Amino acid sequence: MKMIIYFAGAIRGGRADQALYLQIIELLRGHGTVLTEHIGDAGLTQSGEEQSDAFTHDRDLEWLRSADVLVAEVTTPSLGVGYEIGRSVEWGKTVIALYRAAEGRRLSGMIAGCRGVIVREYQTIDDIAPILTEVFQRYSH
Amino acid sequence: MKMIIYFAGAIRGGRADQALYLQIIELLRGHGTVLTEHIGDAGLTQSGEEQSDAFTHDRDLEWLRSADVLVAEVTTPSLGVGYEIGRSVEWGKTVIALYRAAEGRRLSGMIAGCRGVIVREYQTIDDIAPILTEVFQRYSH
Repeated sequence: MKMIIYFAGAIRGGRADQALYLQIIELLRGHGTVLTEHIGDAGLTQSGEEQSDAFTHDRDLEWLRSADVLVAEVTTPSLGVGYEIGRSVEWGKTVIALYRAAEGRRLSGMIAGCRGVIVREYQTIDDIAPILTEVFQRYSH
Repeated sequence: MKMIIYFAGAIRGGRADQALYLQIIELLRGHGTVLTEHIGDAGLTQSGEEQSDAFTHDRDLEWLRSADVLVAEVTTPSLGVGYEIGRSVEWGKTVIALYRAAEGRRLSGMIAGCRGVIVREYQTIDDIAPILTEVFQRYSH
């Protein structure tokens, strides 16, 4: 059966990594069905979607609940991404956090210090493919 | 019995509102015992605390679990704050989110759209005292 992957990245917190999200989503598609792909959508601005927040929240939570794994890009601080990680950890879901380390920033201690989150650091998109192969082999079988 | 209040604000995500966090914590002290007061500490830089992330995570989660209510300042996007909101919602805890609205930014849809979170907008610290009186009267009795 095809793995269902929920991808999370910053929206209103900042769209700086939007092109990168798209590339990660493309790589994830090689491993399964990806939900919330709209996050990589260039048409989606920082103001978010047009539907009501409650609608978006409930739909995204339902998708997250149906997923086998949450892959979160956590370089740009985001309340929504943190929230989805918190709920997923509570559900015992596999959570993979991809973090682009750089001088002058540090990943949230609540994410880095959570045993329920598999954190992998990367520098460029080229690092992502082998990381995904490794984590999906280790944790999804 | 004195109410136990867990206060959450951005640390590694940005310390821009640090002075404001201190003022909010002072106001919260009028309502109960406040945990994680170190967040308002001027000595705490963006690099966070010196203990290991796992230690901080486990201690903060224990404090959060012991609290009657989570008060989160959500203006600065933060993975840790979002994570703590997600876990608290899952526990059925009372969650109050204080947001300073401004042109050009919008609160995360996952927080604004979550029925388990009481969102209150404010402009200056002077707005906080009446907000706290209102929410604590409505939700903590």
